[in-house]
Amino acid sequence: MILNDDEQLHDLQNGLSIIQKNSGFRFGTDAVLLSHFAQIKTGSLVADLGCGSGIIALLIAQLNPRCHVKAVDIFEDMCDMAARSVKLNHLEDRIEVIQGDIRQSSAYFNAACFDHVVSNPPYYPESTGKKPKCVNKCSSRTEQTMDIADVCRASRRILKSRGRLSVVFPAWRYNDAIETMRDNSIEPKRVRFVHDTLKHPASIVLLEGVKQGGKELNVLPPLILHNPDGSFTEEWLEIYG
Amino acid sequence: MILNDDEQLHDLQNGLSIIQKNSGFRFGTDAVLLSHFAQIKTGSLVADLGCGSGIIALLIAQLNPRCHVKAVDIFEDMCDMAARSVKLNHLEDRIEVIQGDIRQSSAYFNAACFDHVVSNPPYYPESTGKKPKCVNKCSSRTEQTMDIADVCRASRRILKSRGRLSVVFPAWRYNDAIETMRDNSIEPKRVRFVHDTLKHPASIVLLEGVKQGGKELNVLPPLILHNPDGSFTEEWLEIYG
Repeated sequence: MILNDDEQLHDLQNGLSIIQKNSGFRFGTDAVLLSHFAQIKTGSLVADLGCGSGIIALLIAQLNPRCHVKAVDIFEDMCDMAARSVKLNHLEDRIEVIQGDIRQSSAYFNAACFDHVVSNPPYYPESTGKKPKCVNKCSSRTEQTMDIADVCRASRRILKSRGRLSVVFPAWRYNDAIETMRDNSIEPKRVRFVHDTLKHPASIVLLEGVKQGGKELNVLPPLILHNPDGSFTEEWLEIYG
Repeated sequence: MILNDDEQLHDLQNGLSIIQKNSGFRFGTDAVLLSHFAQIKTGSLVADLGCGSGIIALLIAQLNPRCHVKAVDIFEDMCDMAARSVKLNHLEDRIEVIQGDIRQSSAYFNAACFDHVVSNPPYYPESTGKKPKCVNKCSSRTEQTMDIADVCRASRRILKSRGRLSVVFPAWRYNDAIETMRDNSIEPKRVRFVHDTLKHPASIVLLEGVKQGGKELNVLPPLILHNPDGSFTEEWLEIYG
């Protein structure tokens, strides 16, 4: 019933299961880190822009038992798959999946109605890197159908004043994320860099901005994934389970 | 000969000595960290903008035996004191102290003649914080006579193409530093956040930009000053001696 051809069920080991494509993009640690990083206030209405399989929406809903999530993706097949994962986890009353283009959010969202936006946007400018043949896989990695500027523009419109935007992005593009947030009246306020070990440069950055917030950045302690001996750090084990 | 009233000699424990005022601003760990962070190429001509006591110029000259430094400060008494420290360390042939306003660099520097600029600008906007009575002390902490935007504007003018600007700045103002650098065609390329311990937010940030550089930020491993037991970390001991 629940699985189509070319799909498989993945047990998240935390009471949730998620459907993923065998050949398409599959969620990674970045989505898990973002879901734990975002400080969702009790009772929040949350938008997940470019939700893909729905992994972030599912984790956010589980970690924040009183929030509601509206998860948007441009691809019909991804929305269908995400909606089936929501049903499988009995979260239909708290997660709604919407097919839509985040660049045209006025088609389906009113202005200033969300408390929080989360997004794991594509990491690579369209001109760089190899392109996989599968359209979904490609669009979740390169900026074909959305980019971080689209996320910030949509957030500026749909967030309430003082609402928050939480994103995960490659560390090497941190400056672009800052600039794009500020261009859209979202002030970056909390940042956490993720390093494979204490001796490695940061690979990704977790970043939270506040719409119309004041200028003061909190650079949180670094998040280190592995000990020098290669074992998982305590914090990473706590997050990843 | 070398000391005025209200001055004392400080032994840097690395072969250098520096004259400081008893009652004015005294150099801190930030200047030491910046001097070690800046990657000065062999034979570089370096400008130290807002040099104060000359601590950064002295350390840069010692750490990079083939470079030459021109150190600028607006205050005559600071320039006089810095010049005496230079003489005391027999570095007159490699460090020149110039009294001048960095907002008017064309009065004493040609355009595009420096390989590297270093600066430890004031950290606090003029409207915030307590103001000490001593003018020099105040001006080295609050943005009375120069700010990071002045440093970036002067750097844009005096740096060669691909020349580098290295600054130390409070972590909570990191986004402002990025924005100001980019506004002046200096692309932030290397950054290192400094944390008191692995569990503390970053206090300061070491940042290096390249004039007309491409967009790609390297977020270096965090610099941690103390172990959980309060002892100095190995890296901090290596730097601070």
